[in-house]
Amino acid sequence: MRALDGLPDFPFTVEARDGAARAGRIETPRGTVLTPCFMPVGTKGTVKAIAPDRLRALGAQVVLANTYHLALRPGSEVVRRLGGLHRFMQWDGPILTDSGGYQVFSLRDTARVDDASVTFRSIYDGSKHAFTPERVIAEQQALGADLIMCLDQCPPGTAGLSEVSEAVRRTTGWAERCRRAHLKADGLGTDGPQMLFGIVQGGVVPELRRESVARLTDIGFAAYAIGGLTVGEDRTTMLDTTELTASLLPDDRLRYFMGIGDPEGLVEVIARGVDLFDCVLPTRTARMGTAFTSSGRLNLRNAENALSTQPLEEGCPCTACGGFSRGALRHLVMQKEILGLMLLTEHNLTFLTRLVSTARKAILSGRFASFRSSLNAAC
Amino acid sequence: MRALDGLPDFPFTVEARDGAARAGRIETPRGTVLTPCFMPVGTKGTVKAIAPDRLRALGAQVVLANTYHLALRPGSEVVRRLGGLHRFMQWDGPILTDSGGYQVFSLRDTARVDDASVTFRSIYDGSKHAFTPERVIAEQQALGADLIMCLDQCPPGTAGLSEVSEAVRRTTGWAERCRRAHLKADGLGTDGPQMLFGIVQGGVVPELRRESVARLTDIGFAAYAIGGLTVGEDRTTMLDTTELTASLLPDDRLRYFMGIGDPEGLVEVIARGVDLFDCVLPTRTARMGTAFTSSGRLNLRNAENALSTQPLEEGCPCTACGGFSRGALRHLVMQKEILGLMLLTEHNLTFLTRLVSTARKAILSGRFASFRSSLNAAC
Repeated sequence: MRALDGLPDFPFTVEARDGAARAGRIETPRGTVLTPCFMPVGTKGTVKAIAPDRLRALGAQVVLANTYHLALRPGSEVVRRLGGLHRFMQWDGPILTDSGGYQVFSLRDTARVDDASVTFRSIYDGSKHAFTPERVIAEQQALGADLIMCLDQCPPGTAGLSEVSEAVRRTTGWAERCRRAHLKADGLGTDGPQMLFGIVQGGVVPELRRESVARLTDIGFAAYAIGGLTVGEDRTTMLDTTELTASLLPDDRLRYFMGIGDPEGLVEVIARGVDLFDCVLPTRTARMGTAFTSSGRLNLRNAENALSTQPLEEGCPCTACGGFSRGALRHLVMQKEILGLMLLTEHNLTFLTRLVSTARKAILSGRFASFRSSLNAAC
Repeated sequence: MRALDGLPDFPFTVEARDGAARAGRIETPRGTVLTPCFMPVGTKGTVKAIAPDRLRALGAQVVLANTYHLALRPGSEVVRRLGGLHRFMQWDGPILTDSGGYQVFSLRDTARVDDASVTFRSIYDGSKHAFTPERVIAEQQALGADLIMCLDQCPPGTAGLSEVSEAVRRTTGWAERCRRAHLKADGLGTDGPQMLFGIVQGGVVPELRRESVARLTDIGFAAYAIGGLTVGEDRTTMLDTTELTASLLPDDRLRYFMGIGDPEGLVEVIARGVDLFDCVLPTRTARMGTAFTSSGRLNLRNAENALSTQPLEEGCPCTACGGFSRGALRHLVMQKEILGLMLLTEHNLTFLTRLVSTARKAILSGRFASFRSSLNAAC
């Protein structure tokens, strides 16, 4: 493994382990992040339907934003001129930006990839763009997040062996170029030092995962992400691949699983040694009228909620559970009232944040196995 | 003027006068309301895009909800079974419900009126309904607001003299029946005593306004509303009619102007002796991307805001002005992000609430005329 050549490397400490699960902390220039940690997604520079002060109050520690969207609207340079992403989003805690690769590759009909770049048409106006490793680093420097990502190629779950293998090779080359571009700027963005993550690809093929980890750790990153999962594979395979990949990654480095946000899934990837994760699921589910509860998902549209005076979840400290009845929340959902989206968003993020915090406490006190099985029993 | 026969009559005191403008206070069972007071509109049981705790924090004192909408969805009886409107909306301050008359009469194509009732088709499912004076009182009793309204007939601004005259006659008859229904229930709703307002009609015809006031004060109400304005007449006529009507109403009774919410208009009706008002304008304007500022309306869609690092309004204590740049807010508006609606809604309500509070202070200190002219100069 190569040294980091002085690149930003926010100190990460594993404080406790319980099986493969770990509880840790990252000391970022914008404060300490306790892990495991779920990051709400703020695609276009806002977590949908929730203000940053409430997000902070419910215990969110890191917020994610999407380079693809922000680079196209309003433009990374606009964000930079407006003072950078922290000012723009009014989030003074750590921010992570993805590289935009995932969004581009999900535009299968318009994306064309070769080793130099990936070209695609904007979802906003059809205009043609090319993302190179150098460009996505430059975009992320202009945006000014604290945690930034390499450009990677993320094949769909239906990809064949050769496509997945090709994606590993290309992702490796791009990682090298991203690191070089990052180093050239001394690891600095608009708003201070940025810690760059390498992204492991390899689909569900153990040999390719091994190869991807080996190549990336050769290049040397301060932290690693597990990409290319939850793209259609079955859950057992996803979890087996996570377990393998996490076990191959350096033990002293932060591990970020890209794209998981269902309560059961989170706990299972924590059990396999993942520290960080993000997903639109809790917020998107909320906007569809469904609340997470400790006895499973609650679809407020169901008529049985119409006269319910119960809260969504007894003891939950969110605004919705602070007095709104299920009946009132159902009315807001049925009438498509914005307050319904706001309250369910806050609730689902509160639910997940508390769940992950409980998982952390369980790891710290060596009770993770019983916590995990009690959760499986409840869901 | 008839005595109130023991009907609920929340004490109203005029604390100071400056010209016709007055500063006062209403002692309701849910707390003191300082007047003049702007009431945000929560049509379907929520002020759109803002949670009740923020509404309270920005200084809102009374919230209005619409009987028409709530009687149809989810149904007043459902609200009652869910604990009444205060629990339903999570608003522990005073609530005012309108009678639904205004909404019904704006459905010109389906509404049919005679002295017995007004029949109409629901905007939700086309089903047929009849509102009688007795029914709208019963609906409002079930909902459980603190301030409730008589059923009135509100003719459009284009109505001829005979239609307006007929509406005064009918509104008078309905007011008598509403008061009787109210008395029959001892002035009590689901959630405690309710203070009933009579509504003055008469269009822009001085003689009809005089007649309406005379008839309603004969019947005797604890408070009076000025209805039938801001329905298309020009502003000078509206203000002249307000001035006349307010001057005719009993000096010791609360006066509520139904449906005004632009900053300049509020100050002008305050100048004419109005204590209470409501309008969807500030919140609807916000959802269209326009912010109130002391130098006029600011349409965030305008390209000139794209790179502006300024706040909407220097010194405004709302969340938007707490750090969001105009550029960032413009981005949220352009991208139709819910947070944009939330922030502008909070801002516009904060702006109006502070404006009315400043008007109150000016009245209390005898400086209302200079406040009013400084505002006219700024706008």
